[in-house]
Amino acid sequence: MEKRELLYEGKAKKIYSTDENDLVWIEYKDSATAFNGEKKAIIAGKGRLNNEITSLLFSKLQERGIASHFVERLSETEQIVRKVTIIPLETVVRNAAAGSFSKRLGVEEGKPLSKPLVEFYLKDDELGDPIVTDDHILELGLATKQEIELLKEKALEVNAVLSSFFAELGVRLIDFKLEFGKDKQGHILLADEISPDTCRLWDMETNEKLDKDVFRRDLGDLATAYENILTRLGGR
Amino acid sequence: MEKRELLYEGKAKKIYSTDENDLVWIEYKDSATAFNGEKKAIIAGKGRLNNEITSLLFSKLQERGIASHFVERLSETEQIVRKVTIIPLETVVRNAAAGSFSKRLGVEEGKPLSKPLVEFYLKDDELGDPIVTDDHILELGLATKQEIELLKEKALEVNAVLSSFFAELGVRLIDFKLEFGKDKQGHILLADEISPDTCRLWDMETNEKLDKDVFRRDLGDLATAYENILTRLGGR
Ligand SMILES: Nc1ncnc2c1ncn2[C@@H]1O[C@H](COP(=O)(O)OP(=O)(O)O)[C@@H](O)[C@H]1O
Ligand SMILES: Nc1ncnc2c1ncn2[C@@H]1O[C@H](COP(=O)(O)OP(=O)(O)O)[C@@H](O)[C@H]1O
Ligand SMILES: [Mg+2]
Ligand SMILES: [Mg+2]
Repeated sequence: MEKRELLYEGKAKKIYSTDENDLVWIEYKDSATAFNGEKKAIIAGKGRLNNEITSLLFSKLQERGIASHFVERLSETEQIVRKVTIIPLETVVRNAAAGSFSKRLGVEEGKPLSKPLVEFYLKDDELGDPIVTDDHILELGLATKQEIELLKEKALEVNAVLSSFFAELGVRLIDFKLEFGKDKQGHILLADEISPDTCRLWDMETNEKLDKDVFRRDLGDLATAYENILTRLGGR
Repeated sequence: MEKRELLYEGKAKKIYSTDENDLVWIEYKDSATAFNGEKKAIIAGKGRLNNEITSLLFSKLQERGIASHFVERLSETEQIVRKVTIIPLETVVRNAAAGSFSKRLGVEEGKPLSKPLVEFYLKDDELGDPIVTDDHILELGLATKQEIELLKEKALEVNAVLSSFFAELGVRLIDFKLEFGKDKQGHILLADEISPDTCRLWDMETNEKLDKDVFRRDLGDLATAYENILTRLGGR
């Protein structure tokens, strides 16, 4: 596989084309951002941690029959994935109240929800990723009714697998964000990353936060928290 | 009918009990507020205008078979309505993009929507009336799935009647907010008010705003705009 030109540089990753048309080369960066890019830092090792964790989680999902864009881990900070056109929606699954859910709706952080709840946010940094209803998604032409139902279903499947997997490791999966994309054939595929940048992960015994909230809220050393997750996952 | 003690004073109205258990006496006030109470003014005549307009609109809806809490107009600023327990949701119907919809989602004001869109907001001044999805409503226990569907249906019926009624008067109904409540028997009833405080009303020819945006955005004299609407409705 050959790495070709940089297609896109985001806040956390660089995407390169390759000599294979439907594969892209992802390089995880050491940058941390929060609050829509307002808070920024370089954290040594973060790129490696998120690349390793994402690779392990996508592999785990694959084992359980949940397909994704993930093809293979290349190096500590790189992986090859199927190229998709990202649907500009962030699909969030919540098992317990936290973050914007708690703040917006006045619900205490950590309160378990009566069942897993799926939300969609418009992936648009300029608009600050506003929450959208199904009817907004339809009106904006971002997905069809069937596609919305598919995203919800897939998101809940991912949640079922990851919640019990993390539970075995003594970690509570509070919530997480997924991105989906369409491949050349128009098939919807789970894409992007699943890492402590995109999940809320709390130690089951102590409620210690092992995710990006450590950075958002200045709770300690981010790399140590992510390393804790990687170690529990059996990663190097 | 006898007016008894003040039950509740809101931003726009006072609610009194009466000698009849299931009726309350509403007095419309001259106060105008916007941005969750941040901007305030007293506007002479506003209470009368909203009371008259609301009375006419609820009567019109009644004629078209849409029940509401409205019982009778008592005076220029007062009316009698059925007492309900308000469901703490603001039900918004949009025919065209405007206001928070435009701002949140980056859609040009005045752009017609492909079909009328219903949104729900949590009626909670402290939280700033956040938008909620059906799943949030269920999780918060504010309404059942069936009740949510009923609110949507009723809101769209109100929209059909009011849109064509206003169109006959040369006014474009851009969007509006409804409140619903439950009576003693648990029946859901359209309640609160329907006025230029709760609707966006644009002159069809000139796009002149004839609603609370005149106050929110300092576009001219609020009472003149509301008087324009009352006159078109055939009110005094
Ligand atoms: N399989 C894929 N094909 C193409 N683009 C992808 C794929 N997976 C993720 N992306 C996109 O790569 C970009 C870079 O990721 P990231 O740095 O996290 O960006 P952002 O700042 O938008 O969050 C994002 O736009 C993401 O949606
Ligand atoms: N039929 C009704 N029975 C009881 N309360 C009502 C009825 N209709 C409206 N209300 C409530 O009356 C209160 C006063 O109205 P308003 O001044 O507009 O209040 P707010 O500041 O909450 O908007 C509101 O809480 C409204 O929901
Ligand atoms: Mg990202
Ligand atoms: Mg009100």
